[in-house]
Amino acid sequence: MAEHTSKQFDAELESVRSRVLQMGGLVEEQIIHAVDGLINGDLELAQAVIQNDHRVNAMEVSLDEDVSHIIARRQPTAGDLRMLMMIIKTITDLERIGDEAAKIARMTKLVYESDRIAQPRFSQIKFMSELVVDMLRRALDAFARLDPTAATQIARQDMQVDEQFRSELRHLITYMMEDPRTISMFIDILFAAKAIERIGDHAKNMSEYVVYMVKGKDVRHTSVEEMEREVLE
Amino acid sequence: MAEHTSKQFDAELESVRSRVLQMGGLVEEQIIHAVDGLINGDLELAQAVIQNDHRVNAMEVSLDEDVSHIIARRQPTAGDLRMLMMIIKTITDLERIGDEAAKIARMTKLVYESDRIAQPRFSQIKFMSELVVDMLRRALDAFARLDPTAATQIARQDMQVDEQFRSELRHLITYMMEDPRTISMFIDILFAAKAIERIGDHAKNMSEYVVYMVKGKDVRHTSVEEMEREVLE
Repeated sequence: MAEHTSKQFDAELESVRSRVLQMGGLVEEQIIHAVDGLINGDLELAQAVIQNDHRVNAMEVSLDEDVSHIIARRQPTAGDLRMLMMIIKTITDLERIGDEAAKIARMTKLVYESDRIAQPRFSQIKFMSELVVDMLRRALDAFARLDPTAATQIARQDMQVDEQFRSELRHLITYMMEDPRTISMFIDILFAAKAIERIGDHAKNMSEYVVYMVKGKDVRHTSVEEMEREVLE
Repeated sequence: MAEHTSKQFDAELESVRSRVLQMGGLVEEQIIHAVDGLINGDLELAQAVIQNDHRVNAMEVSLDEDVSHIIARRQPTAGDLRMLMMIIKTITDLERIGDEAAKIARMTKLVYESDRIAQPRFSQIKFMSELVVDMLRRALDAFARLDPTAATQIARQDMQVDEQFRSELRHLITYMMEDPRTISMFIDILFAAKAIERIGDHAKNMSEYVVYMVKGKDVRHTSVEEMEREVLE
């Protein structure tokens, strides 16, 4: 009976974990579509991203409930509980990545639907978005395989994204100064760049939860070097 | 024995809840200091906010651990578990409010430490910050008293903050167009305004967790009108 229960518990946990990965897949698609929409001026794609955000939200709500039910029914031990905590926190970040994708899509509408005086320019945005999608994939992979070593790599990529964002900011300021009538449009693009930068932060958070889950050590708010020590220990 | 355990459990829960309120108090202070620093050009105050952020982070880590321990040891029932879930999520939002306050302080340094060509202007920032501090207080109060009715009021205030942010954005664009050499400075102020706007979002999240806790209904991602119906039901 105990074994039976434990097998059921494992199955429930596995089902929740695979749905988190599904949610991650949807969120990844949302980012890619949002950035494609922005760069190619594809307003239909932007609209689709905005409409699909409710699917991300619904997945968050449903996964949250399932995790609560599992905890209430199964009264998990320390290790399993840490896993469930990791899942709750991961879902929160995935949902917020979804929000950022929707924000990029809303900015796309503003950029292309207003009377444009100049061609929009996206110096670093494509590159930044490829970086954060890679970070998200690594974070989901680390979640799936319970691999804490990905966290330091992702933290380094996050520093790269931040650097890219600062560089994009300098470009955008230059464009605005060249023709002040474009300020409003380039500020919308700036907000889109900021949304991409934030997606990187969320992927970093997710990889830190995996370290906590596996190592039992909270590496949030620590430097990359400290994190490296914790992970390799 | 059971009663004894339950009393201990209540005491543990009460201790965690009061520490969440303490964390809320610290975070509120961080916002107020950050905005005062920005408006008055007080770089020492800005520096203090940046330094104090680690205290907010440490409170998050320690509260997270305590909640995990309580769940593992006490195996709480559905109602108590919902309370603990509310606490975990509330802590996450409080920590991110702390990050936003630190961001305002970092922007303050950029605004005042660079070679300024013009006087910084903060049309709506003071007003916005008073609104979000009020929202945070209400959200903490709703958390303390387990009062779900505050959520609709806070959601309405959040719409006001968003409107104020859009108005501030229009002002800032006007200043930038008047003198393009000020673009960089006003973009730093824009990021500070954005941080204040985000604090409003986090306070709104917190009040929604209270509704979930008390009513068992997830009102995230629903309109104010729907939320009103759920809360008053």
